[in-house]
Amino acid sequence: MQTMNELFLTLLQDVYYAEKQLLKTLPKLAKHSANEKLAEAFEKHHDETQHHLERLDQVFDMIGKKARGKKCDAILGIIAEGEEVIEDGEDEAVCDAGILAAAQAAEHYEIARYGTLIEWATTMGQRDAVKLLQETLDEEKHADQLLTQIAQQEVNRTAMHTQEHAAE
Amino acid sequence: MQTMNELFLTLLQDVYYAEKQLLKTLPKLAKHSANEKLAEAFEKHHDETQHHLERLDQVFDMIGKKARGKKCDAILGIIAEGEEVIEDGEDEAVCDAGILAAAQAAEHYEIARYGTLIEWATTMGQRDAVKLLQETLDEEKHADQLLTQIAQQEVNRTAMHTQEHAAE
Repeated sequence: MQTMNELFLTLLQDVYYAEKQLLKTLPKLAKHSANEKLAEAFEKHHDETQHHLERLDQVFDMIGKKARGKKCDAILGIIAEGEEVIEDGEDEAVCDAGILAAAQAAEHYEIARYGTLIEWATTMGQRDAVKLLQETLDEEKHADQLLTQIAQQEVNRTAMHTQEHAAE
Repeated sequence: MQTMNELFLTLLQDVYYAEKQLLKTLPKLAKHSANEKLAEAFEKHHDETQHHLERLDQVFDMIGKKARGKKCDAILGIIAEGEEVIEDGEDEAVCDAGILAAAQAAEHYEIARYGTLIEWATTMGQRDAVKLLQETLDEEKHADQLLTQIAQQEVNRTAMHTQEHAAE
């Protein structure tokens, strides 16, 4: 790693891989969500993720590189945690809370990485890339906020009611 | 996973493991940082991380469980990326930018997880735990903001100058 250009390309490939993995995973999360609003949020974010990949394609194009992913163990770890919740989850409300938490970890991973890509592209004077990456970052932050809202207003309450009911 | 209590305990163990890993890794990041402010930020956050672990010990105590970690592949993936930058980094300024980025991914992982722990502890009526977890979350957010500031004002500029100089 000798230059910022190389560092930027490596992180772009990392995020590209992460987005591709999430594109595959989000329909599975939607399918296993008992709460309707949570399922809808995952479906909506699946559509957004397709746009994120299109924007990344454009950024690769702007720096004259072919779009390709680089294996990212962090996102695989986060996704594996979500899948573990689905496999272990006997109570569907508790399972929803666990899936939602794993999805927020994925959102924060992306928020961190897009934040860094934007800083680096700014330093490199890649204004058009900054604009595209910022659009995606805004959508990731909004998706995270929506999940917090669904957790507070719906999923966590339902999961807690189940626990209290089970304890009676 | 049948109850919120079990889900909370599992995530607490995940975060405990992550903090322990970061406690080991932060001195290494500080040692390999060429930029003084970056090295200082990692040293300061190492001290904070010790307090985060003490607070987690207290939260385990509050729920009547023994403090122990559960392997977290996400944080291991993020740490491995930081180590890869150190091993590959021939230019020290570019290496700083890469290390800083990996550290921000770690911060965001923790921000996501403490956010979830706080929501769950709130739902479960664990007010004392919420207070402790919130103190740590505030420190994680502050550490992330400090890293952004160091990236913008110091590290990224230096790395870019290196690149421009190399291109001359």
